[in-house]
Amino acid sequence: MNGPTVIPHLELRQLAERILAGVGFPEAKAALVAESVVATSLRGVDSHGIHLLPHYVKQFRIGNIDPSADGHVVSESGACLLYDGEHGVGQHISAICSDHAVRLCREHGLGLAIARNSNHFGAAFFWARRISSHGLIGVVMSNASPSVPPWQGREGRVGTNPISVSVPSSGAGGWLLDMATTTVAMNKIVQAAANNLPTIPSGWAMDADGVPTTDTMQARRGLLMPLGGYKGSGLGMLVEILCGVLGGGIMSTKVGGLHITERMMNTSQMFLAIDIARFMPLEEFQSRMEYLVTLVKSAAPARDFSEVLVAGDPEWRKEAERRRDGIPVDPSTWNALLSLAAELGIPAAAAGTASSE
Amino acid sequence: MNGPTVIPHLELRQLAERILAGVGFPEAKAALVAESVVATSLRGVDSHGIHLLPHYVKQFRIGNIDPSADGHVVSESGACLLYDGEHGVGQHISAICSDHAVRLCREHGLGLAIARNSNHFGAAFFWARRISSHGLIGVVMSNASPSVPPWQGREGRVGTNPISVSVPSSGAGGWLLDMATTTVAMNKIVQAAANNLPTIPSGWAMDADGVPTTDTMQARRGLLMPLGGYKGSGLGMLVEILCGVLGGGIMSTKVGGLHITERMMNTSQMFLAIDIARFMPLEEFQSRMEYLVTLVKSAAPARDFSEVLVAGDPEWRKEAERRRDGIPVDPSTWNALLSLAAELGIPAAAAGTASSE
Repeated sequence: MNGPTVIPHLELRQLAERILAGVGFPEAKAALVAESVVATSLRGVDSHGIHLLPHYVKQFRIGNIDPSADGHVVSESGACLLYDGEHGVGQHISAICSDHAVRLCREHGLGLAIARNSNHFGAAFFWARRISSHGLIGVVMSNASPSVPPWQGREGRVGTNPISVSVPSSGAGGWLLDMATTTVAMNKIVQAAANNLPTIPSGWAMDADGVPTTDTMQARRGLLMPLGGYKGSGLGMLVEILCGVLGGGIMSTKVGGLHITERMMNTSQMFLAIDIARFMPLEEFQSRMEYLVTLVKSAAPARDFSEVLVAGDPEWRKEAERRRDGIPVDPSTWNALLSLAAELGIPAAAAGTASSE
Repeated sequence: MNGPTVIPHLELRQLAERILAGVGFPEAKAALVAESVVATSLRGVDSHGIHLLPHYVKQFRIGNIDPSADGHVVSESGACLLYDGEHGVGQHISAICSDHAVRLCREHGLGLAIARNSNHFGAAFFWARRISSHGLIGVVMSNASPSVPPWQGREGRVGTNPISVSVPSSGAGGWLLDMATTTVAMNKIVQAAANNLPTIPSGWAMDADGVPTTDTMQARRGLLMPLGGYKGSGLGMLVEILCGVLGGGIMSTKVGGLHITERMMNTSQMFLAIDIARFMPLEEFQSRMEYLVTLVKSAAPARDFSEVLVAGDPEWRKEAERRRDGIPVDPSTWNALLSLAAELGIPAAAAGTASSE
């Protein structure tokens, strides 16, 4: 079996939930994690989708994720809240903090919750959208393990440190930004190497000496390039400042990650909510957004392109497709899921209707 | 006279102030604008320094800047304030809104002021730093005239839309981010053309068909590239959403600019303040910042580099140099200043001690 196995999304979600519950996650936390990774797979962001699940299990089993922990509020003052995640499930801590941000925002017009000692929370958009589903603007950031060198450096000091911003949409789809502050995710280089592509586009990576390279194998042994160079490096630091520094958490080289076994993840995340209604009625904001998006899309396409897209467009399309056709799961992830299901005695039925693509 | 003329910064500031007062700006507003542009020249950011002054005078004379306007508060609710700049001096409106953000932040822990119908406010860092000088984190953004195509497009729809973030520093210098959401400012391409450089680095610009180009003249007739491609395009839209959409102001193709005479600038700007003390004592935040910056700078330099820099470093060094040696003013700007001084009868003494480099 070399190609992906295509699984209906609800079935994949159920399988993920059963596996997590099987290894010892409380039901509600297993359900939340399963929902978040499958929602991400649906959008085509495979680097942060179901692919994460076996890594979560591994991190749980070595003791880096404590599914029994709920964390606690360290302090609350005005519109600001500081939370200690106590190494709990990242998605559970993020749901709590997103909801605190919403609550504080309702009260003050703005709300900011920062979590420290948290864990990998999946894709950032899931939390920005959780906030924007309340009619607010959601801004979410997270630090990450130090896979990115600072500008002019050749040793990792900042993470891929994503930024996501979601605005309440009036219909299906809508503008939704979710981006790492590197040019691409490391997974794209891993995939290029796995597919034996000799070169990658310029701007993606540096070799081990910190010199920009387009050689796939040099990049594989090297480091990710900050988005656009020194500006991406500044944005990565910005995320570290608003998450790690201001949250009082672990920073830079001390942050763990899904592929790091010798230390806790200790991720820091921030959740900002902005109440649109303090500025104008939500409906007015939404019609202004529609006007802007329509105007932006009215730009003549560049040569060799047929249309202009805005942030979120490719993912909404992919989601429509995958909701209909199922989610293709790469072979190594699928085998890991099957092996976990077998180990945990999860009935074959739950993993049985998959069709190989 | 082909090279720049070097002027001591205090003298340049006085000259700028006298010119603005001479054309009809009230004293305090003339002083504020002069301070902001010379502070920017001091940092070496010449595209937003004294170079702007003749353009401000031109925009004032065609009626796009109303120096008598102070603007007014449209609404205040919780930590959120909406301001109408009434086409007043951008720096004056920005000072008022920065101060509102600080006031609201003191009260709620966060403060957000958004101005619409404002004007060009100079460099964004000046306002982020005004906020951070109160021991707060300052985040400032502005929309701008539509010189940047959206991703896959070839017609301008978003501006260079800068983002600046400033944190209170414990000593001289310190981390300070101020970046356009394009790879470079248009001025860098204009300068390459003026210096007869046949090519520019890849990633800076697109030709008129929206195709990436390294040909200087093609770029000159083309468009700026969003930072790192589609992600920069998303960041530019983010700025437009938080400024233009949420502020209820003019958006995208309708926004004017310093080089546009046929419509008002109608810039929208946002000023966010975050109270560090709601999360930890300011001193603790500052020592955590020092730790992070030291750790980041400890990364081994990439080949051909001797050190690692963080956001703000190059500018603080340039500022030390220019405070000591004076500010080099390019010939066309210097001639424009001299011509304005002559027209307004400003004593030669004020512009007299300049030494040609």
